[in-house]
Amino acid sequence: MASSKVIEVFYDVVSPYSWLGFEVMCRYRNVWNIDLKLRPAFLGGVMKGAGNKPPGLVPNKFLYMSKDLDRLAQYCNVPLQPPSNPAEAMFEKGSLAAMRFVTAVQDRESGGDKQTENVSRELWRRIWSLDQDITQPDSLTEAAVKAGLSHKEIEEALALATTDGIKDKLKNATQEALEHGAFGFPMIVCHVDGKKEMFFGSDRFELMAHCIGEKWLGPQPDKVQANL
Amino acid sequence: MASSKVIEVFYDVVSPYSWLGFEVMCRYRNVWNIDLKLRPAFLGGVMKGAGNKPPGLVPNKFLYMSKDLDRLAQYCNVPLQPPSNPAEAMFEKGSLAAMRFVTAVQDRESGGDKQTENVSRELWRRIWSLDQDITQPDSLTEAAVKAGLSHKEIEEALALATTDGIKDKLKNATQEALEHGAFGFPMIVCHVDGKKEMFFGSDRFELMAHCIGEKWLGPQPDKVQANL
Repeated sequence: MASSKVIEVFYDVVSPYSWLGFEVMCRYRNVWNIDLKLRPAFLGGVMKGAGNKPPGLVPNKFLYMSKDLDRLAQYCNVPLQPPSNPAEAMFEKGSLAAMRFVTAVQDRESGGDKQTENVSRELWRRIWSLDQDITQPDSLTEAAVKAGLSHKEIEEALALATTDGIKDKLKNATQEALEHGAFGFPMIVCHVDGKKEMFFGSDRFELMAHCIGEKWLGPQPDKVQANL
Repeated sequence: MASSKVIEVFYDVVSPYSWLGFEVMCRYRNVWNIDLKLRPAFLGGVMKGAGNKPPGLVPNKFLYMSKDLDRLAQYCNVPLQPPSNPAEAMFEKGSLAAMRFVTAVQDRESGGDKQTENVSRELWRRIWSLDQDITQPDSLTEAAVKAGLSHKEIEEALALATTDGIKDKLKNATQEALEHGAFGFPMIVCHVDGKKEMFFGSDRFELMAHCIGEKWLGPQPDKVQANL
């Protein structure tokens, strides 16, 4: 049954706060009466388009974010571990190939977005848990195998990811995020009763629940529900 | 009874997110088993010392913050209204005189910090609710009258606020915030069992509660408790 509450999650696997937001929203897709739409996009394009700078350039902010991510990861039960060289992983290597691949997987997928969800998660696990590459075709393949895709599906998605069609699709998603007012990820756009509410980051879930008329049960709703 | 959980709230009345954090923490001082310490400090000095820039310089971020503050103010039940010219109020006029005055009020006060709390709140109400000045002695006097201080107390605090002793006290509090890792306000430092946990902003209360072993009841705990 289609819900009248549509929630779009714009994310990039290069962003650790996006991983937290993504997992929390995936957990709530069956708890809240919502229709969740995964919107892979390119954070580099959003930062450039919005004229924003990475927060980690301020030393005290960088130190705080490391601690904050560590505490939040534990609290949210997401196995987040910073890569050994975050600047290299995030800014030098980046996520353009990875997000084109996710976009291709989503483009091929019909009847839901389970593959998109699983491939995104496996890519996060590589860069933000296992300190592994996400730029090379072999890396994308390994993530997709773990996500349950067949070799044929992976081969097709890898080929598709380099086409102009998919490059444009990712550009368009990024542009759409900017038009919603994005200046970073995750950005979560709630469409309820013809109105739009945008939330940035992974720290507005309680407020979001209040705004869309749902109940916030913390970042691990299954744990709470099991105890009811 | 002194609690073993000491929570310091570093704030500046120029900062609207500080107002939200301040009110929420003041509400929890009798809900959680904590010893709350109000730490007036100077945001301008923290931003300079940390090499940070105001977030509102990125246009999409500025637009988002306006919306975010509006939603949070309603949800937290704090009568926050942006001044007609936020840049003038925050950056041109600033809060140095106001925070020296709050520091003087706190310095004079014995047996608690009720005056400090009330004067801070009335200053926030002026700049972040009523679009009124907080730089002139008359403005500080009006806020202090509303906060319940006598004319003699106000006169003494105004005189004290211009002394080197108070100027240094505010500088030292600001420096202490930087040494705790601040890059903006509010910054909340929890001291529990000899360990220190620092939280930036007004969006980590649920996580903070988890970290210090208390229960988060939302930003209006009295409302929740009244329904129990």
